[in-house]
Amino acid sequence: MTDAHDTQVTVLGLGAMGAAMARTLLAAGHPATVWNRTPHRADDLVAAGARAADTAEHAVTSSPLVIACLFDYDSVYEVLDPVARSLSGRVLVNVTTGSPAQAREMAGWAHDHGITYLDGGMLAVPETIGQPGAAIFYSGAPAAFEQYRPVLDAVADSHYVGDDAGAAALHDLALLAGMYAMFAGFFHGAAMVSTAGVSAKEFAALAGPWLTAMTASLPDLAESIDSGDYTTDVQDLEFTKSAVDLIVRAGRDQHVGAGVLEPVQRIIDAQIADGHGDEVFSRIYEGITHP
Amino acid sequence: MTDAHDTQVTVLGLGAMGAAMARTLLAAGHPATVWNRTPHRADDLVAAGARAADTAEHAVTSSPLVIACLFDYDSVYEVLDPVARSLSGRVLVNVTTGSPAQAREMAGWAHDHGITYLDGGMLAVPETIGQPGAAIFYSGAPAAFEQYRPVLDAVADSHYVGDDAGAAALHDLALLAGMYAMFAGFFHGAAMVSTAGVSAKEFAALAGPWLTAMTASLPDLAESIDSGDYTTDVQDLEFTKSAVDLIVRAGRDQHVGAGVLEPVQRIIDAQIADGHGDEVFSRIYEGITHP
Ligand SMILES: NC(=O)c1ccc[n+]([C@@H]2O[C@H](COP(=O)([O-])OP(=O)(O)OC[C@H]3O[C@@H](n4cnc5c(N)ncnc54)[C@H](OP(=O)(O)O)[C@@H]3O)[C@@H](O)[C@H]2O)c1
Ligand SMILES: NC(=O)c1ccc[n+]([C@@H]2O[C@H](COP(=O)([O-])OP(=O)(O)OC[C@H]3O[C@@H](n4cnc5c(N)ncnc54)[C@H](OP(=O)(O)O)[C@@H]3O)[C@@H](O)[C@H]2O)c1
Repeated sequence: MTDAHDTQVTVLGLGAMGAAMARTLLAAGHPATVWNRTPHRADDLVAAGARAADTAEHAVTSSPLVIACLFDYDSVYEVLDPVARSLSGRVLVNVTTGSPAQAREMAGWAHDHGITYLDGGMLAVPETIGQPGAAIFYSGAPAAFEQYRPVLDAVADSHYVGDDAGAAALHDLALLAGMYAMFAGFFHGAAMVSTAGVSAKEFAALAGPWLTAMTASLPDLAESIDSGDYTTDVQDLEFTKSAVDLIVRAGRDQHVGAGVLEPVQRIIDAQIADGHGDEVFSRIYEGITHP
Repeated sequence: MTDAHDTQVTVLGLGAMGAAMARTLLAAGHPATVWNRTPHRADDLVAAGARAADTAEHAVTSSPLVIACLFDYDSVYEVLDPVARSLSGRVLVNVTTGSPAQAREMAGWAHDHGITYLDGGMLAVPETIGQPGAAIFYSGAPAAFEQYRPVLDAVADSHYVGDDAGAAALHDLALLAGMYAMFAGFFHGAAMVSTAGVSAKEFAALAGPWLTAMTASLPDLAESIDSGDYTTDVQDLEFTKSAVDLIVRAGRDQHVGAGVLEPVQRIIDAQIADGHGDEVFSRIYEGITHP
């Protein structure tokens, strides 16, 4: 492990996220070199003690640890492919959002150029960087993660999820899937009660504690998934079907819904048609994983 | 208000839920009369101090307050229509699950027979009845709710949500919509990470705190919905689109997903096509409420 305070680090990309990361690294005492395609975005950081590199080439040769936080993978290649030779022998941590497949492809590109690669998936917004609650998943080179973990920990809680470079993006997108689905369900519910004159604010006051309480069921649902044992002596899939059918029908009666729960309804029906009506609700996992 | 301890109460239907309610009412000191189509299901309750009625007619004439907890609305009509005359002048609390439209129709039926009607929507399972965390929404006759609230509170936290009899079911189904959507998102995420050898249990350990943390955004999302002001200077719908597209694509790459997030994707695309790409994520509410 590296002493957190003498690790020279370069940040490429000073958009909302990259700037927040650079600012946090500086505040934690790291000598930071920064670079941005549009140079003036480095000004505030220079005032805060950063060294601005005039080219991407100079930026990557300034530090053994280079963090790329750009718009998308195309922009990462655009910036790094011309300077791949200079990156050779260094550690590249790419926290730009992308798919697991893109991360694996970039790991291959890095390998071909002798670059040690860590991919990052961020569960954070610029405002939470360096604050409790921000998390970044990392996958790829394990030794690089161990070495630079003290630096990375200054930015967010670091979770190493394996040497498959795609694993960080996979974790990131999997948790975002849960979040977007939950928000869509919240919107669906808010739209339903709005027809009775209930404000979204009033509904949020009910839904927040309710959804929080329901997360307590996740370990039980997970247990049935991991064991493949979906037998139950309480609410079965037929029971779930009647509830979900009511929700979909009530939504249609009120002209709201736009199909948010229709995939769930379809999966339930398919599982029941396959003879699983007396099994537990989490059975629908099988319809998601083997569609 | 009625002193909780001398209210005679009748419970019709001793399935898992009705039996839990009757048991809890007895434990709270209420003289309870119980009835079930299949009589032997009353035996345990009689042993606990309940009076078993031999007919539905006798059951409803034993108490000023009659709680119906049957399978569905059809079974409620089947049991109560023949004894409607005897129910006249009494309070019927129907906690059987149904749609808002069914609740409104039954309120009309009750009105025609001089029966005071309260509809209930239960956010509970039999195991939580009488325990912290169980909630029941009530809608319909306000005075009856006020009068019997001390009795109803013994069963679960009581939330009165208005004199439209359909409002309780609407609240119930709206919160269940949020829950089922969240669970579906959890399954989707678990299916994604399973392709990297991560167990559902490991994923639940990440998803529980993450989804709980994300419920903290609901009041902000609600504010934009209530105000109709979807302007933003942070992540906009184009940003959300890129994340949701990645999730859907990553799911397809791993052969998982079964369309759980496709309605969300469709709504986002429609809102962007309508010129709202630079507005905040909660804009998709408008696509749900005015599909
Ligand atoms: N913001 C968030 O809340 C958040 C949360 C999680 C993940 N992320 C991810 O973090 C990454 C950065 O997000 P952000 O919010 O910082 O984005 P942003 O504010 O839009 O900044 C984009 C950055 O990428 C640079 N860039 C774009 N195209 C480029 C190109 N072809 N060549 C060189 N540089 C290029 C921009 O440089 P110029 O200044 O020259 O345009 C800018 O520095 C994205 O992958 C995003 O998905 C963001
Ligand atoms: N269980 C839960 O976790 C839960 C949660 C929320 C809401 N609910 C709702 O609560 C209600 C009751 O659920 P439950 O779990 O108690 O169901 P249950 O265990 O299946 O019991 C159903 C009850 O309805 C009676 N019944 C069915 N058809 C009838 C008919 N035609 N005439 C007379 N009685 C009839 C049954 O009588 P027999 O004994 O004679 O069959 C039994 O008492 C349902 O609307 C359910 O959706 C349940």
